Amino acid sequence: MVPHLITALTGPINEFEQRILDAMPAIERWFRLEWMEHTPPFYTSVDIRNAGFKLAPVDSNLFPGGWNHLSTEMLPLAVQAAMAAIEKICPEARNLLIIPENLTRNTFYLANVAQLVRIFNMAGLNVRVGSINPAIKKPTRVALPNGDAITLEPVVRSRRRLGLKDFDPCTILLNNDLSAGVPGILEEIYEQYLLPPLHAGWSVRRKSTHFKNYEAVAKRFGKMLGIDPWLINPLYDQCTGAQLGAGPGMEPLQTCVDALLTKMRRKYKEYGIDEKPFVIVKADDSKASVGILTVRDAKDLDALKRRARKALIGGDGQPGNDLIIQEGVLTQERVHDAVAEPVVYMVDRYVVGGFYRMHAERGTDESLNTPGAGFVPLAFEHSVHMTQPGVRPGASAPNRFYMYGVVARLAMLAASYELEATNPDAEVY
Amino acid sequence: MVPHLITALTGPINEFEQRILDAMPAIERWFRLEWMEHTPPFYTSVDIRNAGFKLAPVDSNLFPGGWNHLSTEMLPLAVQAAMAAIEKICPEARNLLIIPENLTRNTFYLANVAQLVRIFNMAGLNVRVGSINPAIKKPTRVALPNGDAITLEPVVRSRRRLGLKDFDPCTILLNNDLSAGVPGILEEIYEQYLLPPLHAGWSVRRKSTHFKNYEAVAKRFGKMLGIDPWLINPLYDQCTGAQLGAGPGMEPLQTCVDALLTKMRRKYKEYGIDEKPFVIVKADDSKASVGILTVRDAKDLDALKRRARKALIGGDGQPGNDLIIQEGVLTQERVHDAVAEPVVYMVDRYVVGGFYRMHAERGTDESLNTPGAGFVPLAFEHSVHMTQPGVRPGASAPNRFYMYGVVARLAMLAASYELEATNPDAEVY
Repeated sequence: MVPHLITALTGPINEFEQRILDAMPAIERWFRLEWMEHTPPFYTSVDIRNAGFKLAPVDSNLFPGGWNHLSTEMLPLAVQAAMAAIEKICPEARNLLIIPENLTRNTFYLANVAQLVRIFNMAGLNVRVGSINPAIKKPTRVALPNGDAITLEPVVRSRRRLGLKDFDPCTILLNNDLSAGVPGILEEIYEQYLLPPLHAGWSVRRKSTHFKNYEAVAKRFGKMLGIDPWLINPLYDQCTGAQLGAGPGMEPLQTCVDALLTKMRRKYKEYGIDEKPFVIVKADDSKASVGILTVRDAKDLDALKRRARKALIGGDGQPGNDLIIQEGVLTQERVHDAVAEPVVYMVDRYVVGGFYRMHAERGTDESLNTPGAGFVPLAFEHSVHMTQPGVRPGASAPNRFYMYGVVARLAMLAASYELEATNPDAEVY
Repeated sequence: MVPHLITALTGPINEFEQRILDAMPAIERWFRLEWMEHTPPFYTSVDIRNAGFKLAPVDSNLFPGGWNHLSTEMLPLAVQAAMAAIEKICPEARNLLIIPENLTRNTFYLANVAQLVRIFNMAGLNVRVGSINPAIKKPTRVALPNGDAITLEPVVRSRRRLGLKDFDPCTILLNNDLSAGVPGILEEIYEQYLLPPLHAGWSVRRKSTHFKNYEAVAKRFGKMLGIDPWLINPLYDQCTGAQLGAGPGMEPLQTCVDALLTKMRRKYKEYGIDEKPFVIVKADDSKASVGILTVRDAKDLDALKRRARKALIGGDGQPGNDLIIQEGVLTQERVHDAVAEPVVYMVDRYVVGGFYRMHAERGTDESLNTPGAGFVPLAFEHSVHMTQPGVRPGASAPNRFYMYGVVARLAMLAASYELEATNPDAEVY
């Protein structure tokens, strides 16, 4: 079960959604059994796109920001889940050090860190924030937009431990996605819990690995529910050979895009979907500064070449040549007039809330995760009649957020498989 | 941490409350470590009295009713905690059978059962309600005041298992406090999980055992916090020799009452409390139909004798001669003009909500758990500034409900010790 939240889309629920609601006990049991075998990531957020005819995760973040966009009513759920996570991993924990991104002046990001401090403090830990930004040389208090403040302190590394001057944490929570690589100061820490592990960072992760695992999870889930896994799985392909700088080097990308669009057209035909398919091209290692391109036709790539060349070059000046081409999923969700997509937040195995990311200047087939996006917290529904299958047929209001929580947890499960597969310390049997 | 709720009492927080808020991480860690060694009861509700100068649990219920009085916003917390409990006890569980009290026409009680069905259904189980009332011979649908309905079905007992005609549960949840003794139909079930265990029922439990364990817990907690345990512990005494029927037989009770009142007067003097102490006399085995007497003076007992004799005779016609005399704790809480006391609900180790029990016709020194009581769900506080020790000194709103959740969990911990001590199947080392 996930929190019962109001979602923006209020159209009649389709057959697929009804099937998920009807199968709730079976789905929850399936997850329970999965979590007996696999460890969920410490915390996860998943971007979801609901096209009406299909619903899919498009991005899974293992160092989620944006906690400040969750509603106040969600906080107790997040705290309770954090308590459960701590109890399992390190019940004797006393002190927690949060390592944020090196954004020392972005108060919107820091408001997210302040919310994490609050959640883990309420879960029963002494929490402080240690910056690995060399610019932070002494405790630095930053005022936040909501009137609160946060203090960033320089981390102190001893041979075996990481901490602050007068603060020795037993657990270190990373809210830094390590896309610039793992800094030496975080390496070779064996005495403290480092959560999530370093190999969850973008220096190791590949989107293609995640979606390969997601595909496998979606297939098994689809089999259990008796549905075509395509309804929850975005098709994808990996493209490693493209030389974006030079004209002929674009060919492999063009071939991949063409092949994926063909597959999609076949699926659209099968389901009688009267939409124009499109794909999303992005860097496989999720370089923050690499663009996300919407491509509606392989020929578009020629025209897009110059833009692509510019966009697909990473912030470190290296062309991001390992690409992932992913089936584009339209979003039918709207908040007022702006195109919106739900983002689901999880701590340990529990869905603890979510919000809508919306963007007034973007289309239904474009990424909304760009400057100018707004955030609307999902609210609890106040109806006394919640999903209650079997008891009053026809009288229960559909709960779209339950379905989002299911798909988000499938993506989280895929991330769990992914982390197992990429764990450098894994024992080989 | 517990849900951040609005409480009725808004006076300035006293020193004791401030100490609890300041020690939050230490307190939570203390509970984490306790739950590593001890198993929390499956679900618990605790009645709390806040006298302003002292705060104490006065009753701990291991088969809590009243789930329908919790607010809708609390439901996700209860469900999440139920998921955690199921994961721990029986992750492979599929079907859950709830055994309610034999009240087949009390729709207020049955609304509570319907809420339990909903919680455990949303936690991912197929849930049905099996009545052990011999009057239920076929599935019986009962309409509930809120428009819902509940179906009571006759239980079917085979040699080894309990279920319904076409429903074989792996887990059985008792919402029947067994005050009339353990019915044979529930005995010798070894293949299914029976939660809570039979020895949590009032056929085995004694209030004096619970409060003996609570006293020990309160002492250890007081030591950790550096506070006098009396601030959270109601003094009590057991009185086993009283013959309520006959004049001279009242003497042992009179002696006990007198001794307890003397102890209380000493404590009141120590703390400069200008209130008249009173004690509560009740049956040690909590016979439902046994009265709860407020005694302000040992001499009152003479005048009360006749009332006492009548009140203290159990519903089964036997005089409830095993009595517990408990320090009376005033309640300073009010909802509008009615005297009120908070009731805190827990699933597994988690506080999931609560409500105020209030009674317009009762005084601050009387039991409110009587006909005519009303219920006001505790609501989430909508302030964005929640308890956040250390970050903005002086700016955080006090959260009285946190303190109630701590005391309720201390009582739950005492119940856990109590169940360990009374477990007939316990291995002896």
